[in-house]
Amino acid sequence: MSIRIGILGYGNLGRGVECAIKHNPDLELVGVFTRRDPETVQILTKTAKVYSVDDAEKMKDQIDVMILCGGSATDLPEQTPKYAQWFNVVDSFDTHKKIPEHFANVDKAASENGHVGIISVGWDPGMFSLNRMYANAILTNGKDYTFWGKGVSQGHSDAIRRIKGVKDGKQYTIPVESALEAVRSGKNPELTTREKHTRECFVVAEEGADLARIENEIKTMPNYFDEYDTTVHFISEEELKRDHSGIPHGGFVIRTGKTGWNDENSHVIEYSLKLDSNPEFTSSVIVAYARAAYRMNQEGQKGCKTVFDVAPAYLSAQSGEELRKHLL
Amino acid sequence: MSIRIGILGYGNLGRGVECAIKHNPDLELVGVFTRRDPETVQILTKTAKVYSVDDAEKMKDQIDVMILCGGSATDLPEQTPKYAQWFNVVDSFDTHKKIPEHFANVDKAASENGHVGIISVGWDPGMFSLNRMYANAILTNGKDYTFWGKGVSQGHSDAIRRIKGVKDGKQYTIPVESALEAVRSGKNPELTTREKHTRECFVVAEEGADLARIENEIKTMPNYFDEYDTTVHFISEEELKRDHSGIPHGGFVIRTGKTGWNDENSHVIEYSLKLDSNPEFTSSVIVAYARAAYRMNQEGQKGCKTVFDVAPAYLSAQSGEELRKHLL
Repeated sequence: MSIRIGILGYGNLGRGVECAIKHNPDLELVGVFTRRDPETVQILTKTAKVYSVDDAEKMKDQIDVMILCGGSATDLPEQTPKYAQWFNVVDSFDTHKKIPEHFANVDKAASENGHVGIISVGWDPGMFSLNRMYANAILTNGKDYTFWGKGVSQGHSDAIRRIKGVKDGKQYTIPVESALEAVRSGKNPELTTREKHTRECFVVAEEGADLARIENEIKTMPNYFDEYDTTVHFISEEELKRDHSGIPHGGFVIRTGKTGWNDENSHVIEYSLKLDSNPEFTSSVIVAYARAAYRMNQEGQKGCKTVFDVAPAYLSAQSGEELRKHLL
Repeated sequence: MSIRIGILGYGNLGRGVECAIKHNPDLELVGVFTRRDPETVQILTKTAKVYSVDDAEKMKDQIDVMILCGGSATDLPEQTPKYAQWFNVVDSFDTHKKIPEHFANVDKAASENGHVGIISVGWDPGMFSLNRMYANAILTNGKDYTFWGKGVSQGHSDAIRRIKGVKDGKQYTIPVESALEAVRSGKNPELTTREKHTRECFVVAEEGADLARIENEIKTMPNYFDEYDTTVHFISEEELKRDHSGIPHGGFVIRTGKTGWNDENSHVIEYSLKLDSNPEFTSSVIVAYARAAYRMNQEGQKGCKTVFDVAPAYLSAQSGEELRKHLL
């Protein structure tokens, strides 16, 4: 029997989850839940239906895991604890600072109702966190580095688009190759924000807008750009559509450390991702953790979990025996 | 209270474990158990003692986890099940083909006696296996590649040393850079053995030996060298000692795969290690899993486990709360 999945929220992430379910034959999409009028939402999966979010509770016996695809700012803090009452849930909550609070809220709802809720799933937080954690546990005497990119930052692209005279724009975060090399060499460099990443912006200006002012506003914007070396390119709307419509991302987690009685030996652990589609990759991680949530709950576990709490084997459709035979 | 560790076998790996324990303040080395005369074995840890292996059983209440540092060919198949009777155990069993059999034997002994035994811990099997598994669970539609090196292969070095006229020798396995690049590009290349790795040998010949014959015997040796492009350098004993006394290793685990409704997006997940000391890094992984074995057993778990069965948080000295706050 398949594991029955619901998707709540049908944006980039929700569509990514739908595609990921297609790649996992032991999972079945039952329904997509939306705040919009269900009649107006077209999904790709012929065997699934679109429901109003208001009907979710009624479906609690028809869905094993509800995947929450809302945003971290306002949706998930409310939705994840709420739906953990009725379902096992997985979310991709990524406001690092508020994770302890979110964990506590989800833990309460999930524990009281006998469900498993896995939060902050994706690649950062998610696979990057896992790799930081494994590398820290192995090389206790070392230093961590995380680089992001090359990829599109939604937050920075939004910030550009809020500037007066900007019609549209896209921002790429780019790791500085020489900084990566310095880290890999085991030199343990102390790197400033400016030394680690550069920012490249592609901007479509409104007709007659003052380009010099826009460029200056971008480059001096506090928190977003002022601490970085930023390049601004003004391009046409057609060029933006043609060359910058993808949502690529990726990055590097590197830990260097020493071993030996007198710390005489150096080691480098590096994990990297190069992703054509940030939401589709994130979704693929989420779907594997949905399988885990279901299985852990079947074994009687409950409460809030993160990627740190989930034994890897739960993620795979293969049995322990198959995993040991083929992947160990 | 510290987790009390025993080391059984004091070669490169045993010494590596001793050094790794020094880097983990919550672990304490109680004793090293040896088949040699304990009087002849000098260890580095002043607070620990050297015992005969025959005294291990008597120490079963003084040691929480026994780390087995013998070889996979003959030692571990016998030792791991044997010591799992009396202790939680961790080993680095690396004969891939015999893992299912070894798992069954350790599982029986550990289960019957209420202990946890974690087998095949290190980097391959170990961290490489974990990364293969995570990447497979995420990108279900993809292809795996593992490259080893640059590093010293003990097995190939031994094979060289068995050739008549060879006094000493060291063999490096080297991944082919162009093959790595082809894999990273997402082209899904089919690579032959020869295309993936080259082998480089540094050989000290006995005086008057026939160098051409030795070189030919190496290059044509079945299983070890005949399927590779191999380079042989004859050097002096002094050069070998000066330039090739380390035990570096490392490698790359790469999975490329597709997502999207029509498989339109490509992704690359890459994990790599660059290690100055193969046994010290392996030991550092083992020691983290010793912590996990103890904790899992404290929670009432028993039987044989692999890295697939151990939730990551068990490896870290930090609490769940600290991990969520600092590493998620």
